[in-house]
Amino acid sequence: MSNEQDTTSLGEFTFQCGESIEDLEIAYETYGEFNGSNAVLVCHALTGSQHVARRPGADEGTAGQARAWWADVVGPGKAIDTTEYYVVCANVPGSCYGSSGPASEGPEGEPYGTDFPPVTVGDWTRAQRRLLDDLGVGRLLAVVGGSVGGMNALDWAVRYPDDVHRIAAVATAPRLDAQCLALDTIAQRAITSDPNWNGGHYYGEDQPKPDHGLEQARRIGHVMYLSKASMEQKFGRRAAGRGQSRDSPDPAGAFFPYRDVESYLDYNAENFVERFDANSYLYLTRAMDDYDMSAGYESDATALGAFEGELLTLSFTGDWHFTTEQAEALAESAREVGVECAHHVVESDHGHDAFLVEPGKVGPPLADFLDDGVDGKSVTDTVESDDEGDVHAPVHTSLFS
Amino acid sequence: MSNEQDTTSLGEFTFQCGESIEDLEIAYETYGEFNGSNAVLVCHALTGSQHVARRPGADEGTAGQARAWWADVVGPGKAIDTTEYYVVCANVPGSCYGSSGPASEGPEGEPYGTDFPPVTVGDWTRAQRRLLDDLGVGRLLAVVGGSVGGMNALDWAVRYPDDVHRIAAVATAPRLDAQCLALDTIAQRAITSDPNWNGGHYYGEDQPKPDHGLEQARRIGHVMYLSKASMEQKFGRRAAGRGQSRDSPDPAGAFFPYRDVESYLDYNAENFVERFDANSYLYLTRAMDDYDMSAGYESDATALGAFEGELLTLSFTGDWHFTTEQAEALAESAREVGVECAHHVVESDHGHDAFLVEPGKVGPPLADFLDDGVDGKSVTDTVESDDEGDVHAPVHTSLFS
Repeated sequence: MSNEQDTTSLGEFTFQCGESIEDLEIAYETYGEFNGSNAVLVCHALTGSQHVARRPGADEGTAGQARAWWADVVGPGKAIDTTEYYVVCANVPGSCYGSSGPASEGPEGEPYGTDFPPVTVGDWTRAQRRLLDDLGVGRLLAVVGGSVGGMNALDWAVRYPDDVHRIAAVATAPRLDAQCLALDTIAQRAITSDPNWNGGHYYGEDQPKPDHGLEQARRIGHVMYLSKASMEQKFGRRAAGRGQSRDSPDPAGAFFPYRDVESYLDYNAENFVERFDANSYLYLTRAMDDYDMSAGYESDATALGAFEGELLTLSFTGDWHFTTEQAEALAESAREVGVECAHHVVESDHGHDAFLVEPGKVGPPLADFLDDGVDGKSVTDTVESDDEGDVHAPVHTSLFS
Repeated sequence: MSNEQDTTSLGEFTFQCGESIEDLEIAYETYGEFNGSNAVLVCHALTGSQHVARRPGADEGTAGQARAWWADVVGPGKAIDTTEYYVVCANVPGSCYGSSGPASEGPEGEPYGTDFPPVTVGDWTRAQRRLLDDLGVGRLLAVVGGSVGGMNALDWAVRYPDDVHRIAAVATAPRLDAQCLALDTIAQRAITSDPNWNGGHYYGEDQPKPDHGLEQARRIGHVMYLSKASMEQKFGRRAAGRGQSRDSPDPAGAFFPYRDVESYLDYNAENFVERFDANSYLYLTRAMDDYDMSAGYESDATALGAFEGELLTLSFTGDWHFTTEQAEALAESAREVGVECAHHVVESDHGHDAFLVEPGKVGPPLADFLDDGVDGKSVTDTVESDDEGDVHAPVHTSLFS
């Protein structure tokens, strides 16, 4: 099986905001062989990368989602089987894993910083379209994405409805709700109010980075990714292990225990700043906040009107970031305009993270959807099929009654 | 009807941490006349004050909870009727509305800062006990408190079980769960990582205050106080009104709208720093995090073992900060040791704020509980009463089945 990792120049690129850059670079990976009709585009989540599956010798020295972030779902013999499908995953513009973004060198030889044009989910889709053109892929068998990557997948159905046959939108929604917008704006403010952020220009060799702000943003993210139940089970009120403590507590603060949950947030926050750029975090969360499937249309349903393929929405009961209710509303919009759609609900306490950490529950419906669409064996739906020959058991109707 | 507002010196006070201060001052207000058996202690929430009800001429120039924070529930003719009850409310040690705290002058004539001893909910209760001694109040008819004030009320049942007849614990729990601990630690970190915080010593006349940090903490608080549904209904994804914008956005950020929800958080955060001290916010959230009703006991039930009075737990369906499930667990602990207890569940979409903004739903059960205990007319319970003469309709059993 062949893998490829590369960075390609797409040339001049005009973003949706109207601004252009001379040369948009896109870092991407491919897995498997293209046979003309087996291309699957995988869209990564907020802080993910193009490195979706393992490659021999490539997985040392990477961390978090930069380490093959969906290796239990994508690979040889996995649900998205790279011996069967030609999988493409590209780092989105604005990110920091090789594609052009705020940390990239601008035309004057200095990092762009916040002079990099603002990016949108639509820009990601448009860049992916151009990359696939370069790779010789016209029509995709499928686009699969989770979280904001699911928004990216949905954008394919709206923007290039003729170019994709099956779309799997995992742990996602047509738009963020007010609570998530609120938490995102607090996270963004943590970065921009860090004095080291300096208006987004902190790339000088001796300049301190806005690490405190980015760490705070990441802590907020982790609370959003876990469910109330999973946090309680994982950490409870336990104190952290011996020898662990907060940085520089004040004397009064030292009276209170450093708790396991705090230690978890700190550990993840500190690792995160090693691998991710603060401006990229700003850019990508803003793109996520901005995404609205119905923008330019009357409704989500009309936005999907030109899509003649099949849609799988996959949601998780413990996810309060992107809820099962939002996924059901999306499915209803699809049904309204006759899109063949299944809403597969996964029972999980793992919160939003479930799409990454429950491969045993995510893999089978994805595999069967790629093979057979909404009629795939493990694909369930929230409503009875009206196709008499193929009745799905409605497993979660009570959720939406 | 007489009102009193005063600050009294309790003399030397040793906190639970073991540290002492020479003179603990407590700012308090009283409403109504004490007749020997009608004293009701009201415990304020995190950023509340002693100013629980209106006083003629006293309500100009105050904001937020510093403005009579429960005026629709406490006052002449209100649920907690100050023509009937003698209501006492005291600002807790560590706060900044007149009681001793980090911003108070220490023995060397300078503000304590973080040299002020760490405070606990138990310290609040102990200070209240001494204040009531000074006021000539021995046994209380009732203690009523909401949010962390509800923890304070519960602490009375454990610490001074013989001193109070009825306890109303509103929108509270025997302890915070891991998710709330996580959000609190992020809020605390926002303050301590603000360079102006300076280890807690920022009270010099020309010194900048850690306003950014405290604003961030407050933004997080507001998300915790509202429900997902109420935020969606109140703000949705709307842009803020014309002329409103973020402070100093970067050029890329200016492309995206300043949303109503962001404007709401900013407005409240900016007002909050005008009225509250950053160190007090640290101290009081740490006390809340630390509170655990079962500390020193085998369980919540055994902690309540010596309390022979009646307990009302009042919870709100839309509250994800202090949940109905936590209130029900508390009620079950009380029932286990034979404490007469009712768990009154209020249907509300207003999140944790409901106890402040739904006086029409909070007032009647509180009024009837003060008058007649758990048998009060408007008091409902989650289980059938086993007292045949007085069967309450179980209104919310399905929640806990």
